[in-house]
Amino acid sequence: MKSEIIAVGTELLMGQVINTNAAFLSEELVGLGYDVYHHSVVGDNSVRLREMIELATGRSELIILCGGIGPTEDDITRDVLADYLGEPLVLDEEGDKKIKAYMNALGRSITENNLRQALIIKNGRGIQNPTGLAVGTFYQRKDKTYLVLPGPPSELKPMFFDEVVPLLKKMLPQKEFLTSRVLRFFGIGESQLVAELSELIAKQNNPTIAPYASPNEVRLRLTVKTNTGSEAMELLNQKEKLIMEKVGEYFYGYGEKNSLAQETIAALKNEGKSIAVAESLTAGLVQSTLGAVPGASAVLLGGFVTYSNEMKMKLLGVSEKLLEEHGAVSKECALAMARQTQNKTGADYALSFTGVAGPTEVEGKKVGTVWIALATKEGETVVKEFHFQRDRQYIQHSAMMNGLNMVRKYILAAKNK
Amino acid sequence: MKSEIIAVGTELLMGQVINTNAAFLSEELVGLGYDVYHHSVVGDNSVRLREMIELATGRSELIILCGGIGPTEDDITRDVLADYLGEPLVLDEEGDKKIKAYMNALGRSITENNLRQALIIKNGRGIQNPTGLAVGTFYQRKDKTYLVLPGPPSELKPMFFDEVVPLLKKMLPQKEFLTSRVLRFFGIGESQLVAELSELIAKQNNPTIAPYASPNEVRLRLTVKTNTGSEAMELLNQKEKLIMEKVGEYFYGYGEKNSLAQETIAALKNEGKSIAVAESLTAGLVQSTLGAVPGASAVLLGGFVTYSNEMKMKLLGVSEKLLEEHGAVSKECALAMARQTQNKTGADYALSFTGVAGPTEVEGKKVGTVWIALATKEGETVVKEFHFQRDRQYIQHSAMMNGLNMVRKYILAAKNK
Repeated sequence: MKSEIIAVGTELLMGQVINTNAAFLSEELVGLGYDVYHHSVVGDNSVRLREMIELATGRSELIILCGGIGPTEDDITRDVLADYLGEPLVLDEEGDKKIKAYMNALGRSITENNLRQALIIKNGRGIQNPTGLAVGTFYQRKDKTYLVLPGPPSELKPMFFDEVVPLLKKMLPQKEFLTSRVLRFFGIGESQLVAELSELIAKQNNPTIAPYASPNEVRLRLTVKTNTGSEAMELLNQKEKLIMEKVGEYFYGYGEKNSLAQETIAALKNEGKSIAVAESLTAGLVQSTLGAVPGASAVLLGGFVTYSNEMKMKLLGVSEKLLEEHGAVSKECALAMARQTQNKTGADYALSFTGVAGPTEVEGKKVGTVWIALATKEGETVVKEFHFQRDRQYIQHSAMMNGLNMVRKYILAAKNK
Repeated sequence: MKSEIIAVGTELLMGQVINTNAAFLSEELVGLGYDVYHHSVVGDNSVRLREMIELATGRSELIILCGGIGPTEDDITRDVLADYLGEPLVLDEEGDKKIKAYMNALGRSITENNLRQALIIKNGRGIQNPTGLAVGTFYQRKDKTYLVLPGPPSELKPMFFDEVVPLLKKMLPQKEFLTSRVLRFFGIGESQLVAELSELIAKQNNPTIAPYASPNEVRLRLTVKTNTGSEAMELLNQKEKLIMEKVGEYFYGYGEKNSLAQETIAALKNEGKSIAVAESLTAGLVQSTLGAVPGASAVLLGGFVTYSNEMKMKLLGVSEKLLEEHGAVSKECALAMARQTQNKTGADYALSFTGVAGPTEVEGKKVGTVWIALATKEGETVVKEFHFQRDRQYIQHSAMMNGLNMVRKYILAAKNK
């Protein structure tokens, strides 16, 4: 079924707001089995919006409008569509009640503009808004379906998942639907991953394989079109197996919302181990990234940020002699930082980071030079030198990711011993 | 002059890529004085792309196409436009040379597909690509102008700034242009800021005033349309003065790319002061945010992440008795953490954070309860209790922003004494 998305709002045409709704809706619609052939943006202008609706009606069967259903004068979407369809606007009772209750609770008087948000197109069906006041509309006539949705993503998304998906599945069911699985990889670049999988990608069909690079990692999204969920699982499992044979050593986890930090925390939790960190060039990035994972407190003890040499001596007791002989950006300093952090905290694992984040060289060492060390409670140590590229933030991020992976790999290796 | 933007790429219609190019180009075009009335997205389909070009030609004078000029078979934009215009494609010499030199340097053979990227529309003008191989095209006929640009933002943006802006200014000059100024505010919500400025906003014209909320801060963008830069400055200065009279106490800095962390670092640098931090609930977020600012090493000594009570005792020497009597989420603990951090590091300012980031209560204290303390080298202390809302990450971010502002305000007050 041909569908298209029309976003309404002058702020989009001014470039003040990025049209993320079109991408969100497209991904969900494609997942439900609809074809999306056009995205459009028009401003809060009734002539151009009406022209757009006419054009869309001529070429698509499912037309989704989002934005322009709020309380102000320039929210014209529902009015223009109703006018085009030759239908009056009517009050949605549930939406009307909700607005009145909300305004009463705030002790504010109810204006006509507030109530505009409860208007829907006659002979259409109101779509309730779980996180806002503006009511959406679902309207069908012959083979054309119109959906009117709110513009703010915080309202659009809950309304879409809670109300629109069940409605579409019931009113416009598609035989085939898409199922996706995301595999995450660390330690391999996008071009190398694509090269390793070139045969699989060339022959890709169902599932398709799409690589996405983000800083210091690559995701592969497998997408399969089937009639049943069990058939989807089977095809995805088969393809995943082939991928893992080629690049499994770099795989670290599943899911669009996963991260190396989450997997590291999970690995520590599984083994009942704690971690402490000493950070020079990363300046707290590693600890804050771990600390942002819910439940991190079960494994993250804490640690040190020792940005300056003075702090490495004062807080960690790294000796002046060591710093003079080897410098702060050295194997010896990284090892001392990790060892001292383990001593001072008693953590099962202590991780240390020292290096040059830039923009300028330190101790004659190039920007991007980084030493990372791991010290365990049992007295073992691992230490590694890296040479990262790009800017300050990328170097800090690269150091963090490699450090986390060092811990994760160590735990996995210890487990498999 | 009416302009519109057509983005080409099936990945956009699948929702795999967000159309950030449209927002980027719009903002720049509007700044140059053009009106943008439509954004559209079509897939890599020559029939629908041609229909789109026809439609745009009928309603706009400046038509910008982006995406679909790479080396592969599905990069069809230049072919479809050339066909529509009835012009053949010709090789751009400079682009051709660049591709050959690039492939030779890599030791790779040159394929026909590689050279496709140097094709431009006859009677048009090639636009060189500073960060890639695909050449753009500028084509004029009668009152219609077409621009063909690459899809990857990393190629589009440099090409736009380096090549397209001078070309547009020369070939399609606009009398009036826009100038913007961004004012940043902390400690006031968007709705309160808008309420305080309601009269100014209601009467807004030239400059216009647009508020944007982001986590824990609000930006105001003033935009003025003038014929000269000096006139723009004068109008912006006048409007800024009126805004400052109302909400100046919350203003902290200028610019789209500024941040409270940058302004805090700048304030410390100005006074030649150093800072150290002890973080419990923020787990390193404050130090890593400061550490991400280039040049932070001049003022950020480092500090502690003391996530657990054990670490507060071991690393900071907070007494067991204090923790038993008052708990970790307390005025007393925050003060002890700040004071001990100042002692151990010798920093001019020591900042401490303790509280409940969630998802669960701690010591019977509600999620969002946070104490922040500041201790100075001179022995002064400031301590404050907060009750933040929302999720874990928002609570951590709120704590950080309020802590940074506490330092910034203290420095400003000390300076004005």
